[in-house]
Order: sequence, then C-alpha cells, then structure tokens
Amino acid sequence: MVVNRPADIGSLVRAARQGVIKAAARLISLAESEDDPGLARRVSEALSQDERRAHVIGITGSPGAGKSTLSGALVTGLRADGLRVGVLAVDPSSPFTGGAFLGDRVRMQAHATDNGVFIRSMASRGRLGGLSPAVPLAARVLEVAGYDVVLIETVGVGQSEVEIASIADTTVVVFAPGHGDAVQAAKAGIMEIADIFVVNKADMPGADDVARDLRHALLVGATRPATAWRRPIVRTSAGCDSPGGITDLIALVSRHRAWMAASGEAASRRRRRTADEIRTIVLEDMARRLAERRSALCLEELASRVEAAEFDQYTAADIALGSLIRGGRADL
Amino acid sequence: MVVNRPADIGSLVRAARQGVIKAAARLISLAESEDDPGLARRVSEALSQDERRAHVIGITGSPGAGKSTLSGALVTGLRADGLRVGVLAVDPSSPFTGGAFLGDRVRMQAHATDNGVFIRSMASRGRLGGLSPAVPLAARVLEVAGYDVVLIETVGVGQSEVEIASIADTTVVVFAPGHGDAVQAAKAGIMEIADIFVVNKADMPGADDVARDLRHALLVGATRPATAWRRPIVRTSAGCDSPGGITDLIALVSRHRAWMAASGEAASRRRRRTADEIRTIVLEDMARRLAERRSALCLEELASRVEAAEFDQYTAADIALGSLIRGGRADL
Repeated sequence: MVVNRPADIGSLVRAARQGVIKAAARLISLAESEDDPGLARRVSEALSQDERRAHVIGITGSPGAGKSTLSGALVTGLRADGLRVGVLAVDPSSPFTGGAFLGDRVRMQAHATDNGVFIRSMASRGRLGGLSPAVPLAARVLEVAGYDVVLIETVGVGQSEVEIASIADTTVVVFAPGHGDAVQAAKAGIMEIADIFVVNKADMPGADDVARDLRHALLVGATRPATAWRRPIVRTSAGCDSPGGITDLIALVSRHRAWMAASGEAASRRRRRTADEIRTIVLEDMARRLAERRSALCLEELASRVEAAEFDQYTAADIALGSLIRGGRADL
Repeated sequence: MVVNRPADIGSLVRAARQGVIKAAARLISLAESEDDPGLARRVSEALSQDERRAHVIGITGSPGAGKSTLSGALVTGLRADGLRVGVLAVDPSSPFTGGAFLGDRVRMQAHATDNGVFIRSMASRGRLGGLSPAVPLAARVLEVAGYDVVLIETVGVGQSEVEIASIADTTVVVFAPGHGDAVQAAKAGIMEIADIFVVNKADMPGADDVARDLRHALLVGATRPATAWRRPIVRTSAGCDSPGGITDLIALVSRHRAWMAASGEAASRRRRRTADEIRTIVLEDMARRLAERRSALCLEELASRVEAAEFDQYTAADIALGSLIRGGRADL
C-alpha cells in the first residue's frame, strides 16, 4: 500500500489540515492498523505540532438509553451553532470476530450529506481489552482536520465507559427510564466519571424516578470539594421530531468547557489524558511483544509447564518478562 | 501483619487443604492485596503443586438478568447433589472508589450458614482495567480448599464478561426478557463466549422472543466446526420458590464438563487460561512499575512535554519503556 510510505502520511496530514475529509478518514484507518502498529506511531508524530483546540465530548451510558439518537440531536444542535462536528462511535466489538455492526455505520443518516459532520465507527478493543489507543489518536486527527467538537460515543456499560472519561473534556452520561440504571451505574463507577447527567426519554414514565435516583446517588456519593464542578442533571427527549432539552444540554456542555478552562482543570485533565495515552502505548507495546516473536508459543510452553506443576504462574511471568527485557526468547 | 511472613502462607495453605474456611478466606485476601503484590505471588507459588480438580463455572449477562438469583438457585441444586460450592461475585467496581456494594456481600443469605458453601465478593479491576489476576487465584484457593465447583459471577456487560470465559471451564450467559439483550450481547462479543445460554425469568412475557432472538443469533453467527460443542439454550425461572429449569441447567453443565474432558478441550482451554494468566501477570507488573518508582511523576513530566509539542506520545512511550527496561528513571 503506497500510503505506508512516511512521505504519504505527511501529505495526508497536510491535506487533513486543509479540511480534506478523505485524508482525515485515511489517517484514522492508518491509526487503526493492527498489522503495522508503526503506522499509528507515524500518524501521531506527524500531528504532534498541531494546536489542541477541539472540545472532546464523551457520551456514554447503558445499552438502550438512546445514546445514538441523542448524539444525532446533539450534532444537529451543534451544527446550528455553526460548529463542525466529528463523531467517533466506539463499539465494544467482539474480541473474537472484530466485527462492527452495520447499524453503527449507517446511523445518523440525516447528517450523511453534511460536509461539516464526520461520522466514523471504530472498534474499541485494544490489545489489553480496554479502549484502543487508536481512539484518542482518531480524535486528534479530527481536531487537526478542523472539527470544533469531537463526539465520542461508547456503547455498553463497562471498562471502556470509564476510560472514555480519560479521553473526553466533558463526559455526558445518559440514563433512561426502566433500566434501574442509576444503581448499576454507581456500581460500575459510571457516577464518578460524569460531568453532566442526562435523563433521556424524559417523556416516558419513570423519568422522574431516574432523576430522583440520580440526585440521591449524587447526595450519598463521595464528597467533592466545594470548588468542584457542580454536576447538573438535564432531561432530554431525543426521540421525537422536536427534541427537548438538547439546547439546555449544549449550553451546559459550553458552561462546563468554560469552567474547565477557568479552573485550570482543562489543562490538568489533558495532561493526565496524555500520561494515560503514554502508559497505554507502553503496555500495548509490551503486549504486542508478548504475542509476537514466537513468544505466543513460548507462553503456551510456559503454560504447559505450569499445568504440569513444574512452577507457578508468577515464576512463568518472570521468565517471560526476562525474555522481553533481554529481547531474546525465554530460557526454558 | 504477622501473616505476611512466608511461613504463615504455608500454614494457611495447609489449613485450607484440610478445609479450614477461614484459612481459604485469608489466602484470598492476601491474593487481593494491592499494597504488596508479592503476597499474591507467594500464595500462587504455595498452591502450584496442588491438583486441579474443581469445575469453574462462569455466570455472566447484562444487569437485571437475574444472575444473582440464578446463582443462588444453582448453589442449592449443586448442594443437593452433595457438591461443595465456592462462589466468587466479581464486581465491576469503581476504579475511583474501589467500593464493593453491601448488597453483594449480604446476598445469598440462604446459604450463609451452610458450611459447604463459600461466598465472596471480589473487586474485578486489575491495574489494566480488566479482570484482576486475583480472581483466578481465588478460584485456585477454593479448589485447593476442596470446593468441587467454583461459581464466578460477573455483573454488567463489558470486558470482564468476555474475560470470564478465559477463566471458566463452562461459561453460562444469562438473558432475560425486556432488555433487547441478544443484539447487545452479539455486539459485545458475549455470544461467542457462551457454552450454555440461559433465558431466565422464563415465566415473564417476552421470554419466547429472547429464545428466538438467541436461536437466530446462533444461526447467523460465525460458523463453528461440526465437532464443536452444540450450545444449548435453557429456560429458567429462578425468582420463585420452586425454581424451574435449574435441574436442566445443572445437567447441561455436567454434560458440557464431560464433553470438555472427552474432546480434549478442557486441557487446551486450561492451558490457554494459564497462558492468559501469565500474560496478565507480566503486563500488570509492567503497569505497576510504570506507576511506581517516581515514574508516575515521570509520566506526568513526559505528558507535559507532549502537551508542549516537544515530542509525541509514541516518542514519550519509547522513553518510558527504555526507562523500565534499563530499570532506571527515564532520560529527560
């Protein structure tokens, strides 16, 4: 593939800076390449000088809460404000099939012809099972390509939902009536990551209960400093023709962004995010080394010897780690 | 703490082998110790010679599917067969608070006075966000302590659900009417990990739809070899006094276990599981090194320099990795 040449990544980045959408899409594909992790590295390097200017909004919540519809309404609202919006729909896709569902690729068709909206479905899984480092890199590509807002939507209730908070400037957690979500969310650590709570499908019975459960969970939750952001609960009903609450939500997102900048939290959150990215890259690299260079075989051999009670898992890990660090094969 | 002395771990293991429940509980606490990861290592080493004999059953599914109630009914059924049962309830607990909910600790009270049942709530989170290596180690402790069956129950729909399949000999995935679970499960890779599908709350409206969706998902899913285990769908209603389908479920679990042994899949799955454990231990160790020894500060420093556009994340990762491998501090 001709695009593998470093020079071409440079051309793609220059084109993306000028707003060429196909170039941005291509760069994201390169960032996602599993065959050659060196490509993501080169994309990252090529973008390192570009200004950080986009506002990254994470949208998460349990399945069925209506996140996709809400994202669509949010895009409409942000577009009405004249903002360019990139959307990354992150699938917790199967680690076995790697498949992303067609539905994710074809949704938000209303925006398909709008040049100011970029929609992309991405696989979430990194080698470590958490959020792939390709996701923050894709957000960075969209930032460089001139998108004012990058919306990252994650599906499901799991680790990737919590990790989204380390990527987003503003994390919106979406609830809907009828799932007992608030309690489950508290269990899964979702409450702590939210900057803004949304009670979606607010026109449905039970919405009041959800809002009350959330207020209660906030009251009994961990005490936050008086200077901390006071996390609002906003009601939306994105499912109908004239979506309710979206304007309020957009206003709250803006207010949160302003608060983040004024309080210094924006800078410190970005620094933490970058530290997280560095840590993930290091660990993914180690995981890759463990999987490559016959060490998969080597892990199997070590496992057989553990099964034969020759030594235990930790001793086996020492042998594997020694092999990684010396760059050779494990001494067996 | 006196128990930190290696000699005491040996005594605890000897007591656990004789079925002293408190000793097993203590060993699990040591395996979970975050302050001193060396304790888990010593527990693992002390157990390495013991025979592998327990059947590990993973129970997973989306929130609200009734997994806990089903687990309780399963324990009753297994006890009726004269089997000793250990239960590990794995919380996807908050990475921020680390809190496990009281509800998990007090549930299954019916079994609280039964000496043949051990119930323990564990935090799921490892340093990498996935299933903690303490979970398979705790299962091993229970095995050594003479439990015939170890039930591992995970809450939520996320990465830890998929990882449970690498720990369990038999993975049971629980569905219930009214959540559109089958489609979400297919998205999240849950379908692939199941050995047995349960449609729980089978007396509720919509149960037929769930069973039909599952059959359909199995039909359209990835083709499996003709020699593969034919994954059954069983209906249960665990919520009432005389639970339905539990006997069928227990029979299917037994049949799956026999099939696993006869087909050689049991041995190869255990070997893969051990290889996974070794990999996790290596990566957790790397993550710990990154977090310790001033390298947290170092990651923050590296992050600041990335934010200042001096270099990008991948170059920063090289510096951090070089520091880890040389065992020194990163060259800045």
